[in-house]
Amino acid sequence: MIWIQREIRLPARTRGFHLVTREVLDALPDLEQVAVGMLHLLIRHTSASLALNENASPEVRRDFETWFDRAVPDGAPYWTHTLEGDDDMPAHVKAALLGPSLTLPISRGRLALGTWQGIYLCEHRDDGGPRSMIATGWGERSA
Amino acid sequence: MIWIQREIRLPARTRGFHLVTREVLDALPDLEQVAVGMLHLLIRHTSASLALNENASPEVRRDFETWFDRAVPDGAPYWTHTLEGDDDMPAHVKAALLGPSLTLPISRGRLALGTWQGIYLCEHRDDGGPRSMIATGWGERSA
Amino acid sequence: MIWIQREIRLPARTRGFHLVTREVLDALPDLEQVAVGMLHLLIRHTSASLALNENASPEVRRDFETWFDRAVPDGAPYWTHTLEGDDDMPAHVKAALLGPSLTLPISRGRLALGTWQGIYLCEHRDDGGPRSMIATGWGERSA
Repeated sequence: MIWIQREIRLPARTRGFHLVTREVLDALPDLEQVAVGMLHLLIRHTSASLALNENASPEVRRDFETWFDRAVPDGAPYWTHTLEGDDDMPAHVKAALLGPSLTLPISRGRLALGTWQGIYLCEHRDDGGPRSMIATGWGERSA
Repeated sequence: MIWIQREIRLPARTRGFHLVTREVLDALPDLEQVAVGMLHLLIRHTSASLALNENASPEVRRDFETWFDRAVPDGAPYWTHTLEGDDDMPAHVKAALLGPSLTLPISRGRLALGTWQGIYLCEHRDDGGPRSMIATGWGERSA
Repeated sequence: MIWIQREIRLPARTRGFHLVTREVLDALPDLEQVAVGMLHLLIRHTSASLALNENASPEVRRDFETWFDRAVPDGAPYWTHTLEGDDDMPAHVKAALLGPSLTLPISRGRLALGTWQGIYLCEHRDDGGPRSMIATGWGERSA
């Protein structure tokens, strides 16, 4: 068995959906030593989230933002937790809908994703600042 | 390697979002023996769910309930599965949106969560009764 | 430790929510050798998803489709990514809401699910074609 566990610091990003696959993999060069195993990513915040979706078109990521902003509106009259800003409570709900983590299979040293699947950092706040992620990998070491 | 697997019984709760981090951890004292590893929680029901979100303000949890009740309304005219009550089909949809499980990293005997992250039991039925969870932990044993 | 990793090919299905528990388990006979462990399933697409929900009533699965089609409508005026068809961008959003993977506990050679929990393949496209899933199992081998 091999275990890898590391914090990955993501710089501040604008509100929206951002492709971070390359950035995450670059921080985890020792995944190459895993013949068969799993990678788990947890974002350690409650107003940002992780998703796995289309890795090619920026339009897709923009449409994600449009849909989520309509479905969970800033400043809606029914929010009672408003002290931290109009975008705070919607950010919590969006984060719960998308989820804080991804669990992904590793095969022969690489993530076994589909051709079009990429890792999204979903930033739900206007000014969320840098984000911290814990990456944990485990599996059988390559011969 | 260490493996831990145990059922955790959660007492009946009112419909809404409930913080259960303490209750879950108290049921798993042997997590302290895990140097690096993972904890997985599965709720074994289709009308309740698990989430990881803000662990401080009761307002946040109340606003979660408000949003989900508006987004997936009880008694909407388009539901056809109505035999088990007005709150049954919405509970299934809410449970699928939030998901039945959490997968969380363990580092030096503790969950490696963010400061504000807590485990929610999301009870989507008016009278859901007690809930059963399977907790599974695995990792490298501390020296 | 035992590791199992295998691709499961799912034949084309109509748009909607489909119960595939039996099909998935039949493809994984060696799970019986796992005394305690986990099974992870990843669908390698961005317009279909996996969920765990009610395994008995076809009405429940039809109502899932109704709710998701209303919440994330085909052909809404705010979509900008429309080149691949009216059902493409909604499929991406639905897939992200439900998620691409399931992580499930194994106990004495069987999935430790609740009585009413079954695995759904959620097909969000009108003509999604066959779908590919990577199944990864790991755990302690039975004595």
